[in-house]
Amino acid sequence: MNPLPPPGLLNVMPDRLSTFCLAVLRAAGADAASAEACQASVMHGSLHGVDSHGVRLLPHYVEGLRGGRLNGAPRLRFERRAAAAGIMHGDHAQGALPTYAAAEEACAMAVEAGVGAVGIRDSSHFGPAGAYAIRIAERGKVGLVFGNSDAFVRLHEGAARFHGTNPIAMAAPAPGGDPWLFDMATSAIPFNRVLLCASTGRPLPEAVASDVAGRDTHAPEAVEMLAPLGGAFGYKGAGLAGMAEILAAVLTGGGLSRDLLAMGGPDFSTPRGLGAFVLALDPAAFVGAEAMARAIARYLVALRASPAVEGGRVMAPGDREWAERDRRNRQGVPLDPDTAAAFRRLAGETGAALPFDD
Amino acid sequence: MNPLPPPGLLNVMPDRLSTFCLAVLRAAGADAASAEACQASVMHGSLHGVDSHGVRLLPHYVEGLRGGRLNGAPRLRFERRAAAAGIMHGDHAQGALPTYAAAEEACAMAVEAGVGAVGIRDSSHFGPAGAYAIRIAERGKVGLVFGNSDAFVRLHEGAARFHGTNPIAMAAPAPGGDPWLFDMATSAIPFNRVLLCASTGRPLPEAVASDVAGRDTHAPEAVEMLAPLGGAFGYKGAGLAGMAEILAAVLTGGGLSRDLLAMGGPDFSTPRGLGAFVLALDPAAFVGAEAMARAIARYLVALRASPAVEGGRVMAPGDREWAERDRRNRQGVPLDPDTAAAFRRLAGETGAALPFDD
Repeated sequence: MNPLPPPGLLNVMPDRLSTFCLAVLRAAGADAASAEACQASVMHGSLHGVDSHGVRLLPHYVEGLRGGRLNGAPRLRFERRAAAAGIMHGDHAQGALPTYAAAEEACAMAVEAGVGAVGIRDSSHFGPAGAYAIRIAERGKVGLVFGNSDAFVRLHEGAARFHGTNPIAMAAPAPGGDPWLFDMATSAIPFNRVLLCASTGRPLPEAVASDVAGRDTHAPEAVEMLAPLGGAFGYKGAGLAGMAEILAAVLTGGGLSRDLLAMGGPDFSTPRGLGAFVLALDPAAFVGAEAMARAIARYLVALRASPAVEGGRVMAPGDREWAERDRRNRQGVPLDPDTAAAFRRLAGETGAALPFDD
Repeated sequence: MNPLPPPGLLNVMPDRLSTFCLAVLRAAGADAASAEACQASVMHGSLHGVDSHGVRLLPHYVEGLRGGRLNGAPRLRFERRAAAAGIMHGDHAQGALPTYAAAEEACAMAVEAGVGAVGIRDSSHFGPAGAYAIRIAERGKVGLVFGNSDAFVRLHEGAARFHGTNPIAMAAPAPGGDPWLFDMATSAIPFNRVLLCASTGRPLPEAVASDVAGRDTHAPEAVEMLAPLGGAFGYKGAGLAGMAEILAAVLTGGGLSRDLLAMGGPDFSTPRGLGAFVLALDPAAFVGAEAMARAIARYLVALRASPAVEGGRVMAPGDREWAERDRRNRQGVPLDPDTAAAFRRLAGETGAALPFDD
């Protein structure tokens, strides 16, 4: 994984970037639906400033498609097991396609039954969890998404990798604008932050990562595992990771974090069998869509007007992402040098037109 | 609120404590169902070591019943609005009765529809969120519970009370034993911890509470508000509080934290209009009950065997609570002096037999 790019290094316009992703994924063996879903998810990351889950993952997914870890022509199967619940069998697709499909099934069930919950299995890394929560909010539903991933985060007082960075995301529709959007890893920091500190020579913050014995470390090069969110109250972060693990893996038949093949290889030929979990709640089946819209509008106005500490700024979850999206749509997406180099290689291998002028 | 009691100060056997709670609640005007639900919720807290949400709340609930804030003879009404969703109208009951009832309705819908989600409104403080999640797990379902409460926690970089300590709880059934149980406040610490530091003269930990200007403070007497979970990453704690706020209040028609009358009064006559949200997921509608049982058993074995840091101890969420329950069932529940004094007063006023020998 690469550190986040210094801003403004190489700016690429989103339409060219999206076209490049699609072409490269198709050339690597993804069918049209898989390529479309994958590019939508990485473009979500790159547009909203979540660069760790943006187009820098494209070479990774290409490696999975070429190696056989990812099935480029998956036959998804949705097994509806009750009025409001079912399992999406991912046929080892790249994670975006089955997760978007599960979000749509959850919304369709929510229209009928008030709620729709879909467990996903035989999937793979799905990128930014928020992308799927937004999709549900775009359908007028409250969306929740949970995932797990290969073990990289210790337990509270633990000294071994146990959970993945297990994300939790939620989006709620807000009238006349972007949804309330919250997308968090249950680790104290993302691994990218460790790499960023390593490359800049700065020490890590307090109590966010541990050495091989589970002891806190400030030295990026000593990091063997991440700490769960919460510092001295890390049992909360570990518990939140457990929520995601139980919903995404235990309830669906997906692999536990500790049993998953490492995302980064070296094995790129064996499917990883990841699970995930999405939930859609229809406001019409609770307080009603109009009352919900009024309430969330009032909540957001109050939140954004809440006083800030001197030198600080109060924002609603998502506000930073929407501002970044608007800026990047105008000014382009910054590409880090390693990703740019990988893109040059992929362009040479596939004949896809580079999205930037070299 | 009182600091947590020094252990072993005055030990009361659970059966006597429960009988006392019931008698006092009935004498204060609670009908049989309300009294039973309320004592079950506070006994959950007191048995499992969650003393902040245990029997020390009894005098508080009595004050609400006597003042009229709480309706001692509520007529609950469950409005099923879809196959998997509905609203529980609490008729301003003490919070335990409508929340237990919502948990039962959610389970019943989950049997039919795979999932059951119930928004609760016109309720009041429900005590320990975990009590209701456990009830759902006892029915063989995965249970989630969200609540909000009057504003006492600032936003990330905020300088004003905005969210309550908004709890999130989840329980998942585990074969042959107690469920996996997770119950957290989304604030960095409970307010009780502030009071405990005040009474012992110890400074507060880093970045857990703020003064009137929103600045971190170590001085308990300067605390005007709590910080959201996460320290420098407090946007995560604030976002988790927002999840609970949206599910418990925005989606249900309950009051926003900032609009709620303070739990501690002085107004004990006006109903507070709290919301809450419970969700039940039937494993049979996902991977299947047997496969889920095998997976969670395997997960718990792995978790408990995960190596600990030197001097530390790894536990599954809930393990501390079950151990404490077993100990307290044998040895009794410790009562802090203020609660013991309030019990003497309540015994005198109501004629209920004191649960300890004075």
